[in-house]
Amino acid sequence: MTRINNNFLKLPGSYLFSTIGKKIREYEAAHPGKRVIRLGIGDVTQPIAPEIIGALHTAVDEMGRSETFKGYAPDLGYEFLRSVIAEKDYRARGCDISADEIFISDGAKCDCANIQEVFGTDNRIGVQDPVYPVYVDSNVIAGRTGLYDEKKGCFNDVIYMPCTRETGFAPVIPKERPDLIYLCFPNNPTGAVIKREELQSWVDYACENGSVILYDAAYEAYITEENVPHSIFECEGARECAIEFRSFSKTAGFTGLRLGFTVIPRSLKAEGVSIWELWARRHGTMYNGAPYIVQRAGEAVYSEAGRKQVREQIAWYMENAGIISEGLKEAGFTVYGGVNAPYIWLKTPKNMTSWEFFDALLERANVAGTPGSGFGPHGENYFRLTAFGGRENTIEAVERIKKAF
Amino acid sequence: MTRINNNFLKLPGSYLFSTIGKKIREYEAAHPGKRVIRLGIGDVTQPIAPEIIGALHTAVDEMGRSETFKGYAPDLGYEFLRSVIAEKDYRARGCDISADEIFISDGAKCDCANIQEVFGTDNRIGVQDPVYPVYVDSNVIAGRTGLYDEKKGCFNDVIYMPCTRETGFAPVIPKERPDLIYLCFPNNPTGAVIKREELQSWVDYACENGSVILYDAAYEAYITEENVPHSIFECEGARECAIEFRSFSKTAGFTGLRLGFTVIPRSLKAEGVSIWELWARRHGTMYNGAPYIVQRAGEAVYSEAGRKQVREQIAWYMENAGIISEGLKEAGFTVYGGVNAPYIWLKTPKNMTSWEFFDALLERANVAGTPGSGFGPHGENYFRLTAFGGRENTIEAVERIKKAF
Repeated sequence: MTRINNNFLKLPGSYLFSTIGKKIREYEAAHPGKRVIRLGIGDVTQPIAPEIIGALHTAVDEMGRSETFKGYAPDLGYEFLRSVIAEKDYRARGCDISADEIFISDGAKCDCANIQEVFGTDNRIGVQDPVYPVYVDSNVIAGRTGLYDEKKGCFNDVIYMPCTRETGFAPVIPKERPDLIYLCFPNNPTGAVIKREELQSWVDYACENGSVILYDAAYEAYITEENVPHSIFECEGARECAIEFRSFSKTAGFTGLRLGFTVIPRSLKAEGVSIWELWARRHGTMYNGAPYIVQRAGEAVYSEAGRKQVREQIAWYMENAGIISEGLKEAGFTVYGGVNAPYIWLKTPKNMTSWEFFDALLERANVAGTPGSGFGPHGENYFRLTAFGGRENTIEAVERIKKAF
Repeated sequence: MTRINNNFLKLPGSYLFSTIGKKIREYEAAHPGKRVIRLGIGDVTQPIAPEIIGALHTAVDEMGRSETFKGYAPDLGYEFLRSVIAEKDYRARGCDISADEIFISDGAKCDCANIQEVFGTDNRIGVQDPVYPVYVDSNVIAGRTGLYDEKKGCFNDVIYMPCTRETGFAPVIPKERPDLIYLCFPNNPTGAVIKREELQSWVDYACENGSVILYDAAYEAYITEENVPHSIFECEGARECAIEFRSFSKTAGFTGLRLGFTVIPRSLKAEGVSIWELWARRHGTMYNGAPYIVQRAGEAVYSEAGRKQVREQIAWYMENAGIISEGLKEAGFTVYGGVNAPYIWLKTPKNMTSWEFFDALLERANVAGTPGSGFGPHGENYFRLTAFGGRENTIEAVERIKKAF
């Protein structure tokens, strides 16, 4: 008789953003006259930049002609994309990363979720708390955690590294030693960043302890301040202990186009085995590459015109972030983030729980956000709003919140 | 200290098609004057049909305008695609499958490889032998198999179901009972098909024994004969025991566009748990959808014009299959397949091993194919050629083989 993977049953309810989507749809169905403004899911709203649209059209035409048609992509992704990434995202910032250390994929979510497969199930994971739920959930499914503790709001056998107001929303090196350390900067959901010397101390720790850091830099393009590392490979020793995830989703509006990449240095080893080799084997065996046309679109992001256009989009989203931050502060909220990340992290008023505030915000202001507790137990009493709404919606949402609270 | 997933070390060498690609590149580098014709990897060569190219351009334009821009896709895929699939691939053939039982993905390879995650690691798998290597390899990585036995050419604790000339390249229900049964029809690599009543007996067996059939129908569009099922859901009881994988890769030339889908009936359960629910959770947690523009391209495959164009392409590939089959028979080879599938399965001459014939074919005829042993121990002394080459290349390859052997 077929047995299921019982680890799935440890996961409480559905994936956070699926639950939120369902709640909003139910509210709208029950209140047909109301228009809900969605500042919950971190989905972009600006159209793909003209330079990238042009590259897509050109690539589509190539697919329609025998002489230029492209079938299966190379295992690691097209060289034209990997080499421009290595040059502009890494070597231009002084990071020693080569094109063949870059694996193109259909997004950072899949990569963050799948990377754990190359590691043994007996590794202990450490995660920032609160943080993007995919790191923990994928490890739950793989059986690397214990049961969910309803009371504590967390999984047993996971090392949660609290990121609180007191720590500047940065994690502190924990007493227990994690084997796999998930770090996400700029952070989703808090919007917090890490200074170069702080990140260096994590790299030093990982090298000394034989841990691997899984570094999610999906929001790197939103960094505005100095002395904030854009890549973990800016740190000395990171080639021996780190993997980095990057995404085109928030950088260039690719949430609906799907493109990302993972950087694994050739020198990264565990138990003497090259992690690059394992991931290459997984990529070759269980994956079949991102679409050619989307890889060409990714290449266009690095062109002079493409880069200018996506930077303007990011600046525009960050103006939204400013509008939300300022508006909420005026309304008396305590607000974090929004400076180096498209996320505003706010303290719920009157110590409401995150889900109480979610419901209140939906009902009283018809604005949807994301409950902080969905990102981990230390997200309780916090709430995430995103800067990805349209300008008018963002302004109206802030006005509604001001009135309602 | 971080431990690796040791199961990776059980896998011999690299993924089959990566190894072949490397061997060809090395041969070409050593013999600059020679032009190798590739009939190895099952990659299509005809450009995307005009109707689909048109749909792609339209969708790209939508992505470039605020009013029509699309971000994250719905968890299961767009309704417009799921409903046309349910209607035209299933209900039109009398199969009781609804749109919400269809999960859109970036290809059948990923789905075939990832599906095992929803099942416990204590399940025993049964596979046709020979067969597409992804089924076994993904289970090796997950720890569902023993070590690789070099001598036998197979993994311990896997139930190999021999598909030989004597069985008409069909599997026979094994003595040991598999929990997860992988079936692939039309078969890759042998090109064999299964009759409806034979498939029904597998469905009956699975229902009686509480097994789940993982049915790969990626080559369904190549079926030309009557009484050959296009879907396992043509069989009674399949809704209680089967999952089906489909792909746009070979149906419409999408190897470089990436689109496929998996059908999981709501009524499929194991240990009383809905497999649909588990896969939906995995889809939501570890995956982020196929690109909108590619889903629109998939929809165009079902339009009247699109369907006509892709059928012409398939007919053209099948003419290639006929050219290879006939040519090889004339040259004295024993040849199978090529009637309901784009694969020609040939017996190696003089009982050469599959890899010996690979080398001989590459050196003497400058033609690359796929060694049968790469698909499982019962593929030894066989060899796969594909009908996906260009017409001139196909004709020339056959001429070269005739001369060389």
